[in-house]
Amino acid sequence: MQREGPTVVAVDAMGGDHAPQAVVDGVLLLTAADQVRVLLVGQEGAIHSALRGRPLPTWVEVVPAPEVIGMDEAPSAARRKKDSSSLGVAARLVREGRAQAMMSAGNTGALMAVALLVVGRIPGVLRPAIAPLWPSRAEPVLVLDCGANADTKAEYLAQFAVMGSLYLEHVLERPQPRVGLLNIGTEQGKGNERVLAALPLLQAAPCRFVGSIEPADVLAGRVDVAVVEGFVGNMMLKTGEAVVELIFDSLRQGASRDLRSRLGAWLLRPVFRELKRNLDQGEHGGAPLLGLAGTVIKAHGSSQASTVASAVRAARRATQVDVVGRIAGSLAAIGQASREATDEPKL
Amino acid sequence: MQREGPTVVAVDAMGGDHAPQAVVDGVLLLTAADQVRVLLVGQEGAIHSALRGRPLPTWVEVVPAPEVIGMDEAPSAARRKKDSSSLGVAARLVREGRAQAMMSAGNTGALMAVALLVVGRIPGVLRPAIAPLWPSRAEPVLVLDCGANADTKAEYLAQFAVMGSLYLEHVLERPQPRVGLLNIGTEQGKGNERVLAALPLLQAAPCRFVGSIEPADVLAGRVDVAVVEGFVGNMMLKTGEAVVELIFDSLRQGASRDLRSRLGAWLLRPVFRELKRNLDQGEHGGAPLLGLAGTVIKAHGSSQASTVASAVRAARRATQVDVVGRIAGSLAAIGQASREATDEPKL
Repeated sequence: MQREGPTVVAVDAMGGDHAPQAVVDGVLLLTAADQVRVLLVGQEGAIHSALRGRPLPTWVEVVPAPEVIGMDEAPSAARRKKDSSSLGVAARLVREGRAQAMMSAGNTGALMAVALLVVGRIPGVLRPAIAPLWPSRAEPVLVLDCGANADTKAEYLAQFAVMGSLYLEHVLERPQPRVGLLNIGTEQGKGNERVLAALPLLQAAPCRFVGSIEPADVLAGRVDVAVVEGFVGNMMLKTGEAVVELIFDSLRQGASRDLRSRLGAWLLRPVFRELKRNLDQGEHGGAPLLGLAGTVIKAHGSSQASTVASAVRAARRATQVDVVGRIAGSLAAIGQASREATDEPKL
Repeated sequence: MQREGPTVVAVDAMGGDHAPQAVVDGVLLLTAADQVRVLLVGQEGAIHSALRGRPLPTWVEVVPAPEVIGMDEAPSAARRKKDSSSLGVAARLVREGRAQAMMSAGNTGALMAVALLVVGRIPGVLRPAIAPLWPSRAEPVLVLDCGANADTKAEYLAQFAVMGSLYLEHVLERPQPRVGLLNIGTEQGKGNERVLAALPLLQAAPCRFVGSIEPADVLAGRVDVAVVEGFVGNMMLKTGEAVVELIFDSLRQGASRDLRSRLGAWLLRPVFRELKRNLDQGEHGGAPLLGLAGTVIKAHGSSQASTVASAVRAARRATQVDVVGRIAGSLAAIGQASREATDEPKL
């Protein structure tokens, strides 16, 4: 089902390293062509200061929420503040159907905890997953789960494959996405308990499963979707980010130490900029939290205005192509098939 | 116990992307001051060709082994060839006491399988670990396990902490190394089942445990030893390597596309070289396989002569300071203490 007309997106004005300024600026970058109505949720005073006298467009409405969940607060604190925080109020708008989607650049753990509690899971989904896009030498790759779950079972991994595949196919319009399972090797017999148990489930899942893959396959863009346990995906993501930061910091330091290096760095500036843009490409559009009973998009904590705007657009797109309904339908079909298989008389 | 006199190191001449040439060249870089005797194990014809007419120093002896284990062969194949392969013969030299240490730049899985089978574990060690040094903004950090074990229990992680700590303290002479446990967050309650169960064990272990850490803490050099499940450490290591490769390839491509970029890259060459050297710093000295009943050092598959030489030196140093004996002693003391604790009458 394709939804027509503008999508109502509840935007957490208070989440992110540069909130509320970057969030407000991002929302103001949207135009009528984006076909969204934004409910900007947060502290009214802070939002109005961030507007800096600019008028609120007709398709933006401020919804007050007195409290803020800090970037370092534990999910338990987030749950306590679920009725009063910008995150909690945004989630309630989705639950009550006043918004079809929500977007936050805030605390990921808090977003997942509040969304699970307030928006809830799609029936049949065992665990939701957070699915950021990674840069690659080819198209960006959707990697899930990158940290929604500390502990993972093989059955979750099979569902992640289906959910990620549907998102990529319909939101990013990449037909028949190739799905790989991240593993310590590609030879038969390689893997930990969970991966070994997941391999046959992925083979049977309704997606184009290509087998075990290694991290280099993701960076090379040899798959479109990479399935991984949340703990591992989270550590890989953070390792990649830390390595990128180390390299750029070292280059920046080295490039400023003498005249020769400063000149070299100035000449190479277009190359550095392009590389940085490629490495950041995944951040555009944000990371969906898949498996929840509403569209929930997480933008990177360091998001600036343009990233916020593209995350809101991704929220609209995911809603428009009905990712939630497609996941529900696909999992119901698997459930039905496995029930029928179980019901068959044993010979 | 400090061992005096030259250390006998069995070197797998056939292992590595550039074997036997890089291995033979590496061994020829060693001098009498390195205080090693090398048993160069492999196909005699190939070794002699790689010598290119240079005479064999008196402290190097060729030990023939007819077969080679390929870089992509499964550990099962390695086990089959354990009597005839260069890896298997090198391991047997250690087992029989004809060598005190072995070094290979070959297939990691095969090395671990053969070493476990032929050299065996230190009594009391639950699982060995592979412990490469990672580059950081400060000193290199020993990260273990980076892939010797697909499945890990909390008890293994506690032993990894002790083994890594002893290696760093005695081989790299960094007193009282700080040990961190890699985790998806540093707040209380964060972690998967294994990590949560390991935290109290690490607190009680005879090492300077500083708590949960994230990948950025490793890259920043905020710890000296980072403990991690083998599956996760392996994926992090490969992610880091793939990111570095992606960045350098992109810079290389960008730097050759026009005159301005070519000039910039030439001016920045010293900066790039220094960065590359820093990123490779961990590869010098190789990665020990800790927990085995003999010194076993893995050099990176892409090792050139100088890396091979420094891995042989690391093998000598680890043998000289008796890492194996220290690990055995430390684990025996823990075992003794826990037996005494268990023997105490319950009140």
